Amino acid sequence: MKQEQNQNIEKLIEMVKDVRVCMLITKEQSTEDFSGRPMTISKIDDDGTLWFFTRISSLKVDEIEESKNVSIAIINERSNNYLMISGSASLENDKVKIKELWSPFLKAWFPLGLDDPDMTLIKVTPSEVNYWDSSSSKMVVLFNMLKAIVTGKEYTEGEHGKIDL
Amino acid sequence: MKQEQNQNIEKLIEMVKDVRVCMLITKEQSTEDFSGRPMTISKIDDDGTLWFFTRISSLKVDEIEESKNVSIAIINERSNNYLMISGSASLENDKVKIKELWSPFLKAWFPLGLDDPDMTLIKVTPSEVNYWDSSSSKMVVLFNMLKAIVTGKEYTEGEHGKIDL
Repeated sequence: MKQEQNQNIEKLIEMVKDVRVCMLITKEQSTEDFSGRPMTISKIDDDGTLWFFTRISSLKVDEIEESKNVSIAIINERSNNYLMISGSASLENDKVKIKELWSPFLKAWFPLGLDDPDMTLIKVTPSEVNYWDSSSSKMVVLFNMLKAIVTGKEYTEGEHGKIDL
Repeated sequence: MKQEQNQNIEKLIEMVKDVRVCMLITKEQSTEDFSGRPMTISKIDDDGTLWFFTRISSLKVDEIEESKNVSIAIINERSNNYLMISGSASLENDKVKIKELWSPFLKAWFPLGLDDPDMTLIKVTPSEVNYWDSSSSKMVVLFNMLKAIVTGKEYTEGEHGKIDL
């Protein structure tokens, strides 16, 4: 269902493209509990891949090296978009890629700029996206109906849509 | 350190009181991965306890019965507040409590009102609160300095404050 998958990714990109800050959630190494911190989304690719800048020395990098399963929570009251993205995280240290995604506003976190040796990208490949739409005054039922029909999958929670990528 | 604890709770309440929608994150029963959904905070008590209305039949109720450790992600761009609250969740079916927290806007989710038999409260007792303050143009370092001094606890991630309740 290539066409359907493209529609799903387009929907994801549409919901994410204006989002500045999300919560990136990893698993704590010791407790297996959740660990989250606000992160700026640097870019979402045409295939739905999400990119973040971070410090190599940060705790989240250790946590991702330990467990690549991460979640991204998005609460965008401005556009009434609420998303939970599950995916696989990896570190990307390629200097060409870092330079491609670099933006002057990142100097707030990396005053040394591209010369900072403690800089890496986190790449998140989404595997599942749950979203809620509340453009009406309440949360509305918004399935990806095509997906539901094609797969015959039942949605046990009635209030949201689920995109499998 | 009773006084300090009170200050921490006051800080938490101040940051949460204007928040409408948060992401309530539970553990998926089968996979131990994260499961999240947007939830309206019905109330935060003077001691920091958070209250949510939900359906008894919802998946999150099963997940809480399985594992009481939950997290609450708050992204409030309006007030530049970013929080991750870890805590212990329990179900509260007391009709008096439900009536006390009931608000007419909940009819959007519970058209039957207080007579709906599929209604319960989720009570979350926070155990740890991480927050970030970005009232300046960038994320700023905001420790709970008193706590750091009192406990001698080291903060390995420099960009945020941590409230232990």
